[in-house]
Order: sequence, then structure tokens, then C-alpha cells
Amino acid sequence: MIKIAVDAMGSDNGPSIVVEAVKQFLNDYKDVELTVYGRKDDLKDLEGIVKIVDCPDIMGMEDGALQIMRKKETSMIKAIEGAKNDNLDGVVSAGSTGAFLTASTIYLKLIEGLQRAALVSPFPTSGEKSVIILDIGANNENTAEHLVQFAKMGKIFSKVYNNVQEPRVYLLSNGAEEKKGSPVVKEAHQLLKNSNFEGFKGNVEARYVLDGKADVVVCGGFEGNVFLKGAEGTAKLVTGMLKQAFKKNIFTKIGYLFAKSGINEMKNKMDYKSYGGAMLLGVNKVVVKGHGSSDARSFYNAIRVTYELIKKDMVNKIKEELKNERTSK
Amino acid sequence: MIKIAVDAMGSDNGPSIVVEAVKQFLNDYKDVELTVYGRKDDLKDLEGIVKIVDCPDIMGMEDGALQIMRKKETSMIKAIEGAKNDNLDGVVSAGSTGAFLTASTIYLKLIEGLQRAALVSPFPTSGEKSVIILDIGANNENTAEHLVQFAKMGKIFSKVYNNVQEPRVYLLSNGAEEKKGSPVVKEAHQLLKNSNFEGFKGNVEARYVLDGKADVVVCGGFEGNVFLKGAEGTAKLVTGMLKQAFKKNIFTKIGYLFAKSGINEMKNKMDYKSYGGAMLLGVNKVVVKGHGSSDARSFYNAIRVTYELIKKDMVNKIKEELKNERTSK
Repeated sequence: MIKIAVDAMGSDNGPSIVVEAVKQFLNDYKDVELTVYGRKDDLKDLEGIVKIVDCPDIMGMEDGALQIMRKKETSMIKAIEGAKNDNLDGVVSAGSTGAFLTASTIYLKLIEGLQRAALVSPFPTSGEKSVIILDIGANNENTAEHLVQFAKMGKIFSKVYNNVQEPRVYLLSNGAEEKKGSPVVKEAHQLLKNSNFEGFKGNVEARYVLDGKADVVVCGGFEGNVFLKGAEGTAKLVTGMLKQAFKKNIFTKIGYLFAKSGINEMKNKMDYKSYGGAMLLGVNKVVVKGHGSSDARSFYNAIRVTYELIKKDMVNKIKEELKNERTSK
Repeated sequence: MIKIAVDAMGSDNGPSIVVEAVKQFLNDYKDVELTVYGRKDDLKDLEGIVKIVDCPDIMGMEDGALQIMRKKETSMIKAIEGAKNDNLDGVVSAGSTGAFLTASTIYLKLIEGLQRAALVSPFPTSGEKSVIILDIGANNENTAEHLVQFAKMGKIFSKVYNNVQEPRVYLLSNGAEEKKGSPVVKEAHQLLKNSNFEGFKGNVEARYVLDGKADVVVCGGFEGNVFLKGAEGTAKLVTGMLKQAFKKNIFTKIGYLFAKSGINEMKNKMDYKSYGGAMLLGVNKVVVKGHGSSDARSFYNAIRVTYELIKKDMVNKIKEELKNERTSK
């Protein structure tokens, strides 16, 4: 049985989307046991099919690292604590990113040998497979050593989750040449190069991150967040302009009717909701952050990602890799 | 007469596109005097209509800051030197960004009171006006004081170039809240806030940079470059997917024929070629970097931007602003 702690609160769209997602998930997957944390009154529809832990308090979307200790009775903290104390395999929440990442790191602790956890997500590319980018926002500042550890975790993630045999790993920089980059990126480049890091292919410019040549792209959390959100904003701008373009006159409106199915297919590929959420790599459980604006489908996918990462034993694979490295030194 | 130094070499598409752009520009603008630097043989078509300075050497696209001193005979360095020694008003090149920015800063020198120059470009938005983003890549690392100076220059640029009366200035960060950001961004936020910087509206996430609410977005050169190139890559991915979507079947193909004019309009709005290039703000002349992959239209626009910035007296306006500030302290 795969055991997952689900924080039902904190999503912009309220607990009802979580209830719907949980019901659908239990319908589709039989080897799973969900424990749902939230206000009992909001979870009536789940009575009898999941274990419910009544938590009257909710972590606010604006709550960050500082609020964690003051808000121990929230569904979010209870879910993370539950994952730890009741030995569940993973935890998923659509609540405040800052609070969730910090609390997960504090309660579940970093895997031995790691200095920092990283938030990771697959992105669509023009190639066959998605690209794994990390860190996309768990950290505000990173050292070269952090980036090297992210490269290790990203490589394992690409192998395990995307089934890539020999992942091609790149560093995000402002130029492909070795000497290009921020001081931290330049240093990380040298560390990876000098250690003959398997699969390290050098720097990649942000322009080429989504063109399918990279399996893993490593960056600091601040730049990664700029990339992630910049890509979201640009995709929104382009599709918005497209919408305007189709409204132009009667001919373009007819064109839209004919092209609709193709355009919807494109939109689906770009739609983050099909990915479900971002994963926090580097702590001792599977931790998945659903989008704050999740609908039921998106939150369903967040539970699915949690389930798959547990099934594929992601946490232990990272632990083993880091352990092997220490013993081989 | 507006006097501009034009580096004819260094573009990916060779000097012929520069020759074509120069001819067209002289046809459209009468109050301008161009001095063109490059291989005489490549510039035969310009004989008699511009001043030609024969430069046998070319700066390579891969050449960076280190090559500048060894490559003093290149058309790029000669053009920059020419702008300085012959007192031309500005210089434009489509050659190596690293070499061009560094050489411009060394030869033309920073405006008094400035610590760093910044590369700036307007971006399309879903609003009425473009947004001015800086630094998009002149620097690999910046301090909070640099960002404050970029905010000042960006505000002047927005007023002078985009005719915005009271520019709304934002700091690029990983969250809207004051406490969010890299250590440098957090410090810059406090400096701007505590100095009551006019028009400072706080942080903006990368997701909202292109939605029209900001007139100026300030960031370090490394993150700015990630944003710029990430936006380019995403726009390319989305339009590529759209193309695929239209190829799907006979109905979508018919749809494309009807929608074509609208789609082309959207593409034009996203097309960087209509912007011509990025400007280096903070040195004692107008310095414009055309895209390496410029065609004649794009390079024409780069000359036009140089011309307009000179006509609008951009350099002196920045000088005055910084001078007023020093004397008011």
C-alpha cells in the first residue's frame, strides 16, 4: 500500500476541488491509502473512504517561513507531521509554497549529505521528452556546491521519472561558452567539469532550454523561478494575442472554428495543469507542491505525481546515490 | 546633423544586410551622417553616400572581453573609437555582445556617478505600451546599488522613449511581497523604498512582467538575460506548436488560411526584429547592439533606434539626472 498525506486546504479554489480529486483518484488507483488533513465539515464527502484528520486552522497563501512555528495546528503542518510520525510515504499540498517548502525541510529533514533541497518540474519541449529543470524556486540564493548537488538529483529524476538512460545535463547560463555566467555558475561549471560529471554537456542559454536537447537543466532557485514564471507569462501573452487575432473579422473567426482542435492540443501540451505540480527533491519523503490555482484535474495530477514518485522509490534512489558517493571517496 | 558610427561586420548574415539597411535608412532620413566601418570591398555599394573607414579585421561572434585589446584593428573597435575621437553621437553594431559592451564601456567611459552600464530593451506586453527591462545582460553579477542606478536610468528611458509621464517601476523578484527575493533584490527593495524613489511600485514576479502593469522592470544582468532568452524560447515553442496544430488535417489547414492575417499580426508584435536591438545605457554615447541574426529590416531598425535616442538626447538626460542628484545631496 502506498500511503499519502493530503493537505485539503490552502488551494485558491477551496477544499471542494481536493475532495473531488481524492474521490476520483481512489476510483482509479487501488493500492493507495490517503490521509486527508483539513476542516472536518469541508470533508464530509470523504467520510468512510479515507482517514480524515480534523485541522481547524489553515495556512494562508501569503504565509511564509516565519509563520510555520506559529501555525502548528494548520492542515499543512499536520499533514507534514503526519507523513513523518505515521510513516506515510509522501505529502501533497496546494497551499503557500514558501511555508510548505520550509516546513517540509524542517520536519522531514534533508537527506544525509545534501546542503539544500530543490524544487523541480518537467517542462514541455519541442522534442519528444520533457526537460527537468531545478531549482525553480526553493532557494533565494545558491552556491556552486548546491548546483552540483542539484545536477546529481536532477539526473536521477530524469532517469527514474522520464526513463532517460543517459541524461544530458546542462547549466543555465547567459552563454554556451565555459567562461560565460554568473560567478556561481562559472564555479559550478568548473566543479562539474573537473569531476568528470557523467552526462554534463556544459552551459545552455535560456533560449534553448525548451528545444529538446537538454534532459536536465540546473540553475539557482532565483533564476529558475524567473525562467519558470517568465515562460508562463510569455505563453499566456502569445495565446492571448492569438485569441485577439482570431477575433479580428468573420474570416479569422471561421478559421478558428476549423483550427480549434489543433489549437486545443497545443494548449494542452503547454498547460501546467497536466503536470500537477512541482516536487521538492532532497528531503526524506516525497513532497509535491500542487499549484495554488489548482482545479480538481490539476490536484488529481499532483496526487498522481506523488504516487508515481513513491512507487518509483525516488527518495531512496537519491539516498543511495549520495551514499555511494561518500563511500567511494 | 546626427552622426552615427556603423560597424558593418560581425552580423551572422554578413555585411550585405548592413549595406542594404544603410542605403534604405539614408533614403528615409535626411538629417543623418553615417560613417561605416568594415572591409572596403564589402562596402562598394556605399561609396559616395557615406564615409567609409576600411577595417580589414573582424571581431568574431565568440570573442569576448578578453579579445578587445588584441583586436584593436577590427571594425567594431574602430567604430567605437571613431564615435569617441571624431565626436559622433552614437555607434551601432550587430557583432559579439560581450566584446561590444565591454569595449564601449572602456572607450566611451561610464557617465559620471554610475557604477555600471545596463543593457535595455522594450518588450511587447498585453497592454498598450511596451515594458522597459534592464539589465538584460551587460553584467554577470550586480549589487543592490547597481539595481538602484538601473531603476533611475530605466525611468528616464521610459519617459523619453515611451513617453510615459509617470513610469511605474518594479523590481523583478520571485514574489510580490517585500521580503521575497534574492539577498541583492531584497536590499535594493529597501534602498528604493527608504529613498522614496518616485514611481517605485515594489516587486513583480516574472509571470506578470509582460501583462502591461509595469513600465520599467529592474533586474540583475544574469536574471534579465534568463528572462529575455526564456521569453524568446517560449514564444518560439508556442508558435512552433501552433504551426504543428495547423498541419493536423485538412480542416485545420483550411482554418490556417482563414486565420493567417491575424496570426501574422500576432507574430509581428512578438517579432524582436521590429525592435532592432538593445541599448547600452550608462556610457557617454548612444550605443545600440543589433541582433546577431539581424536581417536588413532588423538592422535598419537598430540604426533607427540609435537615431531616435540621439535625437531625444538620452545620454544628456541621464547625465543631468545623476548630476542633479549629486548636487541635491
